Amino acid sequence: MLTLNFDKLEGLVPAIAQDYLTGEVLMLAFMNEAAWKATLATGRATYYSRSRKCLWVKGETSGNVQRVLEIRIDCDDDAVILKVEQAGGAACHTGHRSCFFKKVENGGVRIEGRPVFDPKEVYRK
Amino acid sequence: MLTLNFDKLEGLVPAIAQDYLTGEVLMLAFMNEAAWKATLATGRATYYSRSRKCLWVKGETSGNVQRVLEIRIDCDDDAVILKVEQAGGAACHTGHRSCFFKKVENGGVRIEGRPVFDPKEVYRK
Repeated sequence: MLTLNFDKLEGLVPAIAQDYLTGEVLMLAFMNEAAWKATLATGRATYYSRSRKCLWVKGETSGNVQRVLEIRIDCDDDAVILKVEQAGGAACHTGHRSCFFKKVENGGVRIEGRPVFDPKEVYRK
Repeated sequence: MLTLNFDKLEGLVPAIAQDYLTGEVLMLAFMNEAAWKATLATGRATYYSRSRKCLWVKGETSGNVQRVLEIRIDCDDDAVILKVEQAGGAACHTGHRSCFFKKVENGGVRIEGRPVFDPKEVYRK
């Protein structure tokens, strides 16, 4: 009943994380079936990292976890929305609240807003 | 400058259509480079249909076009948000305002809201 269609995208579905209160879209990532099940089981947004090729509990490094308060599935069962409470005030690894901080304007891109944290401090390597 | 990274997903990027006024996420679809350029050039949301394997001007059949009022690009240039004015009151081919009308609840799915149009009348075949 709660299975998604993972066949269209080689085992993945896109997942939109949206601020539960404001509706702001914070990020878009992908889930494989294990990430989807982990999200349902834990209530923490869990994605599949395409670059690292592993499950990715959002915030496991930065502490900026996403508590999932509502889940929506689309008409074709091949995309989901997680309505989340974003810890740390920012979803983006750049420190911006939302990953979608580049606004198209006059044929170029304008950066909207300022980072709320310094990535160098959060991702110590 | 306004090029996206189409390499991560075999020539596609996911595109989120969001209601310009309310922030409601209406649908998620994909764009190839031609769809992206057409969207920029025309101001009408244009996607790439994975099932039909062709450009898809949203609303070309139903009349429910999406006028693009703002475009956001994410940190990695591999996802976009179109903030749109949705003609006809509904983005979904089922007649629902949003494609994301299935809400996960108590281990199952509950349909939220009612269709605002009858697909049989809109998609005459």
